[in-house]
Amino acid sequence: MNLKEILNSLLPKIETHLQDFINAQDFNHSQMLKEMLTYQMGWEEEGSKGKRIRPSLVLLTAKALGGEIQKTMPAALSVEFLHNFTLIHDDIEDQSLYRHNRPTLWQRWGIAQAINAGDALFSIAQLAMLDLENTCGSSIAVKALNDLNQTCFHLTRGQSMDIAYETDQSVSPSAYLEMISGKTGALLGLSAGLGGLTSGQNDPTIDFLFEFGKSLGMAFQIKDDILGIWGDPGKTGKSASSDLQSRKKTLPILYGLEQSQNFRNMWEMKDLSKTQIQQMAEILEDCGAKIAAHQEAKSYTLQAFAALENLFPSSSDRNDEAAALFELTDELLKREV
Amino acid sequence: MNLKEILNSLLPKIETHLQDFINAQDFNHSQMLKEMLTYQMGWEEEGSKGKRIRPSLVLLTAKALGGEIQKTMPAALSVEFLHNFTLIHDDIEDQSLYRHNRPTLWQRWGIAQAINAGDALFSIAQLAMLDLENTCGSSIAVKALNDLNQTCFHLTRGQSMDIAYETDQSVSPSAYLEMISGKTGALLGLSAGLGGLTSGQNDPTIDFLFEFGKSLGMAFQIKDDILGIWGDPGKTGKSASSDLQSRKKTLPILYGLEQSQNFRNMWEMKDLSKTQIQQMAEILEDCGAKIAAHQEAKSYTLQAFAALENLFPSSSDRNDEAAALFELTDELLKREV
Repeated sequence: MNLKEILNSLLPKIETHLQDFINAQDFNHSQMLKEMLTYQMGWEEEGSKGKRIRPSLVLLTAKALGGEIQKTMPAALSVEFLHNFTLIHDDIEDQSLYRHNRPTLWQRWGIAQAINAGDALFSIAQLAMLDLENTCGSSIAVKALNDLNQTCFHLTRGQSMDIAYETDQSVSPSAYLEMISGKTGALLGLSAGLGGLTSGQNDPTIDFLFEFGKSLGMAFQIKDDILGIWGDPGKTGKSASSDLQSRKKTLPILYGLEQSQNFRNMWEMKDLSKTQIQQMAEILEDCGAKIAAHQEAKSYTLQAFAALENLFPSSSDRNDEAAALFELTDELLKREV
Repeated sequence: MNLKEILNSLLPKIETHLQDFINAQDFNHSQMLKEMLTYQMGWEEEGSKGKRIRPSLVLLTAKALGGEIQKTMPAALSVEFLHNFTLIHDDIEDQSLYRHNRPTLWQRWGIAQAINAGDALFSIAQLAMLDLENTCGSSIAVKALNDLNQTCFHLTRGQSMDIAYETDQSVSPSAYLEMISGKTGALLGLSAGLGGLTSGQNDPTIDFLFEFGKSLGMAFQIKDDILGIWGDPGKTGKSASSDLQSRKKTLPILYGLEQSQNFRNMWEMKDLSKTQIQQMAEILEDCGAKIAAHQEAKSYTLQAFAALENLFPSSSDRNDEAAALFELTDELLKREV
């Protein structure tokens, strides 16, 4: 089975278990809370769900290492609930109006109910993880919860920096990398790590898995940053140079602000024309910002593959799921930039 | 030692451990996050701290049952961090501007940073509880985390109802009791229960402790509701009939809305004079709302004492901390109404 076939078999299982877990909770007089969580998870209408990348990664990793779906499932559910909790709160914090082509939760129910619904989903993520006690024992459950909450704390550190950066002129590229390691890397690292923990791996192996997931997330985010300036609008679905237009402080832009006085001057200007935005992209390329971002992305990509190679050194010994992990990494990172 | 002497000895220990726990976390590039948590915990200036009732209750209960402070401390820290997480989010949700005579966290740092700081403190509450693995073993740690997150989920159910009630005309007294059982009862129940769990008690004893803490919280809240209408302004620090003025749907008011057409008529009117507010309080009393609320409070008070009597049947066998639990209950509930 290749990646696509494996995911086709895993995704319906994940979805059923996610729904069963929510349905098993006692919402009592708070049916509105259940309605909000159902909406956020994308069960209200077709086509409004996320891709479930994180729980897929948990289960793929576990099976690649010889683990069992049934033992690992609580961890897979937990990371997906956790991810959705962060989406609810991030959408309020960023004042995002739409997600998956629908109004965000706070747009529909108001900020107060949305903050609280996020908190409920955070508790539910913890309760889901606690079910590991039944499948893997209490010692593994405690380790998993520790990893989960260290990751959450890391996420909130990244998010705090991200919010501050909106008004903060001087952000160094290294602080930016620390920020995205919290916002994007940490949860993918946790997902891969939990696959190892719940399939009975030792600490060095689990550390490699964290490293793999984190590097994968970092490389993916930086590629996204590059595509946000130089991506082909026909492929990315965004307008050309969209991050320059929206004044998003992504990695290439931070390099530019650090390296080029010309770029800094234009960054200060208001109401730029299309030609001027195009000119900014060229200045960025000329001052080496594009190459520097590429190098950074490449370095994380190599780290992700190195960690995978270390975990599965011989290609002939890899089972279908291990091969699929290489395929997934390749697919997430191969996008042309 | 009486209650006051015991608390005088416990409170500095609690405070030191709370501070040590926050200081031991790696905030890395996110020093602003640390600053916010320090502000919320009341360590920035004198007189801005809460009373630390919940961690005191955890430790008092554990010692009353022969437990050790050092073993139970992680649970005490956890409930105080959790309580402060709920305060940060509640203040945003209720748009409260002041707490402990200072601007609320969101007033000072904005809504986005405040939501995120609450999430960080929620993670920290979980990490604090996980330290029980070192003092009580992983099986107790998993049980405590399960109780913690069931309580959080209960809190969010109560809070969701509370937010909805602001715009919802028809709230039944029984739905209101379910709401305050989440908002006030659950966390005090958890605090007492954790004292039992971490001091090695069996399940029936832990259940009685939950019952005791929950009843204590419910009785306290309903007494507060009664004081909000008929309390002596000189003693409560609030203006007379303040809950009638602010249109807060508390238990006596919900009884009034259910029982009296006269009261419903006045509740619909706008810009009421002091005399009219006074008249509303009288109608409430005449239609039996005050007596009904009193009876409800009395019933929970009796349940709290009954649970305590059940736990410590013989007054001669009670140690100082057990006697202090009776004193604390008496003190919290004796306020004149």
